[in-house]
Amino acid sequence: MRADAQRNRERMVAVAAEVVAEQGADASLEEIARRAGVGSATLHRHFGGRSALLEAVFRSRIDAVCERAAELLAEPDPLRALTVWLRLMVAHATSSRGLATALILSGDCGSDAHTRLLDAGRKLLERAQHAAVVPSEVRIEDLLKLVNGISLASAEDTAQGDRLLTLAIRGIAPAGSE
Amino acid sequence: MRADAQRNRERMVAVAAEVVAEQGADASLEEIARRAGVGSATLHRHFGGRSALLEAVFRSRIDAVCERAAELLAEPDPLRALTVWLRLMVAHATSSRGLATALILSGDCGSDAHTRLLDAGRKLLERAQHAAVVPSEVRIEDLLKLVNGISLASAEDTAQGDRLLTLAIRGIAPAGSE
Repeated sequence: MRADAQRNRERMVAVAAEVVAEQGADASLEEIARRAGVGSATLHRHFGGRSALLEAVFRSRIDAVCERAAELLAEPDPLRALTVWLRLMVAHATSSRGLATALILSGDCGSDAHTRLLDAGRKLLERAQHAAVVPSEVRIEDLLKLVNGISLASAEDTAQGDRLLTLAIRGIAPAGSE
Repeated sequence: MRADAQRNRERMVAVAAEVVAEQGADASLEEIARRAGVGSATLHRHFGGRSALLEAVFRSRIDAVCERAAELLAEPDPLRALTVWLRLMVAHATSSRGLATALILSGDCGSDAHTRLLDAGRKLLERAQHAAVVPSEVRIEDLLKLVNGISLASAEDTAQGDRLLTLAIRGIAPAGSE
C-alpha cells in the first residue's frame, strides 16, 4: 500500500473508532466517511463493510494498548507503569460503547487479541513483581479478569471504574490476614 | 397463615431455589411441584405464577445473606467476618443461574433488596474499619460493586471468583503507593 493510501486508511480507522465510541457498533458509515473527508465508495473500497471496519477499529485499539504497555516498560517506577496501564484498560473498557474491549479482556473473542494483551501486561506485572511491589503469586490472567469485572460492573461510569480499580490495587484489607 | 401452610410454602420456595439454580429462570414448574411433593394446583394457589415464585426465591436468598451478615457480627475476628460474607456473596452470584444475585448487587432491580444488602454489609465493614484492618475510605457501595464485577467476570466459575476476591482483598500492590 502506498504511504498516502496507508495514512488515509489509518485516518478512516481513527475516525471510525471515534464515531463507534459515540454511537456504538451500529454507527452510521456515511457519518464516518463524511468526518474522514472521504466518499462512501472509498470507505467501502478499503473495508468492504461494517464488520471489516469494526475489526480494524478493534485491532487498532489492541495495537494502541499493547504499544502503551511497551512504552511503559521505560517508566522508572514499575508499580506506576503497571497501574497506569491497568487504569488505561479500565478506561478503555468502560468508555467503549458497543465494541467491547470487555470482550477481549474476557478472552471470549476468537482472535489472538487476548494473548497479545496478556503478553503485554505480563511484562509490566513481572517487572513490578521483580521490584517486590506486587506479590509474586499474582497472575496476569487474574489481573485482566479483575479489570474486566470492574469494567462490567461500572458500565459506562469511568469514575466508578477508576475508584474500584484503586480499591483492588490497594486491597480491601491490605494489612489483614485473609 | 397456619404454621403447616407456612412450612409448606417455605419448602416450595427452597425446592424452587434448588431447581432454578439447576435449570435457570425458565425452570419447569411441574418439576418444582413434583420435588416439593405437592400438586401443580397447590403451587399455583400459593404463588399464582412463575414471576411470583421467582420473586419469593429471590427474597429468600436476600433474607439468607442478610441473616448470615447478622450472624457474622458475632464472629470474633471482624476481618474474617467481612471476608466470609463477601466470599458468600461472590459464591451466590457466580452459582445462581438465571436468577441473578448480580442484579441485586448492581442495584438495577426495583426492590429494596439492594438497600438491605448495603445495610447488612455496612455493619460488617464498619466493624472491620473500627478494628483498623480495613482502610476508613472503603465504602460499602464500592465493595458490593466490586463483588458484582468479580461475579460477572467469573461467570459460573466459582473458583475463579474466589481467586479474584482474594486478589482484591489482599490488593494488587498492597505495599505500593499508587
